[in-house]
Amino acid sequence: MTYCVGLRLRRGLMFMSDTRTNAGVDNVSSFKKMYTWERKGDRLITLLSAGNLATTQTVVSMLEERHKTAGERDPDIYEVPSMFQAAKLVGDTVRSVIREIAVGGGFKSESSFGATFILGGQIAGGESRMYLIYPEGNFIEATDDNPFFQIGEHKYGKPILVRAYDPDMSFEEAAKLLIVSFDSTLKSNLSVGLPLDMQTYETGSLKRGAEKRLLASDPYYQAISDGWSEALRQAFQHLPNYEGLEQAD
Amino acid sequence: MTYCVGLRLRRGLMFMSDTRTNAGVDNVSSFKKMYTWERKGDRLITLLSAGNLATTQTVVSMLEERHKTAGERDPDIYEVPSMFQAAKLVGDTVRSVIREIAVGGGFKSESSFGATFILGGQIAGGESRMYLIYPEGNFIEATDDNPFFQIGEHKYGKPILVRAYDPDMSFEEAAKLLIVSFDSTLKSNLSVGLPLDMQTYETGSLKRGAEKRLLASDPYYQAISDGWSEALRQAFQHLPNYEGLEQAD
Repeated sequence: MTYCVGLRLRRGLMFMSDTRTNAGVDNVSSFKKMYTWERKGDRLITLLSAGNLATTQTVVSMLEERHKTAGERDPDIYEVPSMFQAAKLVGDTVRSVIREIAVGGGFKSESSFGATFILGGQIAGGESRMYLIYPEGNFIEATDDNPFFQIGEHKYGKPILVRAYDPDMSFEEAAKLLIVSFDSTLKSNLSVGLPLDMQTYETGSLKRGAEKRLLASDPYYQAISDGWSEALRQAFQHLPNYEGLEQAD
Repeated sequence: MTYCVGLRLRRGLMFMSDTRTNAGVDNVSSFKKMYTWERKGDRLITLLSAGNLATTQTVVSMLEERHKTAGERDPDIYEVPSMFQAAKLVGDTVRSVIREIAVGGGFKSESSFGATFILGGQIAGGESRMYLIYPEGNFIEATDDNPFFQIGEHKYGKPILVRAYDPDMSFEEAAKLLIVSFDSTLKSNLSVGLPLDMQTYETGSLKRGAEKRLLASDPYYQAISDGWSEALRQAFQHLPNYEGLEQAD
């Protein structure tokens, strides 16, 4: 499993991903699930991936290779004119990868080759945008009504996102929110694991913002993890107990 | 979907279940998912169900009917000598119901006829016990290490259970804990719905304890739901923001 989140804020975008991959609980490794294509002053595109690791790595490698074989007819992620076209390029690529294995290869289980992506960034001349891309290659865009995307093990970490997200947050507050959301997930699902990768994108900058890898030993991560458990317990203590439990006769 | 929780406390057991059943989002009904068999001074057995409604209702009806056809060789839930035998009876019943449809009837999709149960209570001469019963009919018991069971949509409501559960809780605190856990689930999954059924069992009493149906209009439920959202926001505000976001050059 995996857990990745992309947040759309007024000041830009914020991404976080875990690094655990596993095939069974006895075959666990660490892989970065955050990929960035940058040409300063022209574009910053970041991709988060969840799902079959062979599929996601193949998608990323194909996007890289197409850039190196420039001049041919396939689109190049450094040349697409808009974020919409970038999302379409990633969507077309993932569909073709999955089709090759599942349909071309004759293997039945399409779902087990599946992968889902969050793509965000900005290309000169366009807005800062963020998309959720499905294994079928289609995609949806983040809006004011739906300002964040989660992929992978999204359930444990959703309640705090729903309650504490604010589009006017600073990146520092958003980092706190994402760390709390990830911490709830890490505590409940062994297949999501540290370290965490974090990246910010400031709207209009057209270059990568802050990047950080959070290790288990990170003192801030520890402080948030312990502090949030304690804060939850205290918040819970301060709510009134239920008084309506009349005993039956 | 469904959400049900059984808590094992020092003073007894506490059960809560939602009442929503659905076949698609446009076919929604309300059914009680909590069943109780009681003979004062001898036994109190409570069953919570999640899964295929036809299966769970058939299991409960078969348990009821076997009581009426007393004297035959099939065990009767009012006569089994221990909670272990009660769990075995429910497990055998659910396995036979699912086998009849899936194997006997030749229908392929075993999982879609599946149902999972929480069974708790006490029979004179034995301890108060609680079990989680799988669709295959096998079951596990709650212990000090694993003092609560959730069935149905368990992920959203788990983080608060993990953090705030305490075996020495009063029933009034446990009711608050369950309401917070259910509220997080209700806010995130449309297929879990009010009203909620709540029941307590005091160890050694051998009769049903308090029983309550919480409606959406219940003022305590409203106070907890609003209060918890606000408490979470405040707890979040009081944590320090992340300071390590140095911008790349």
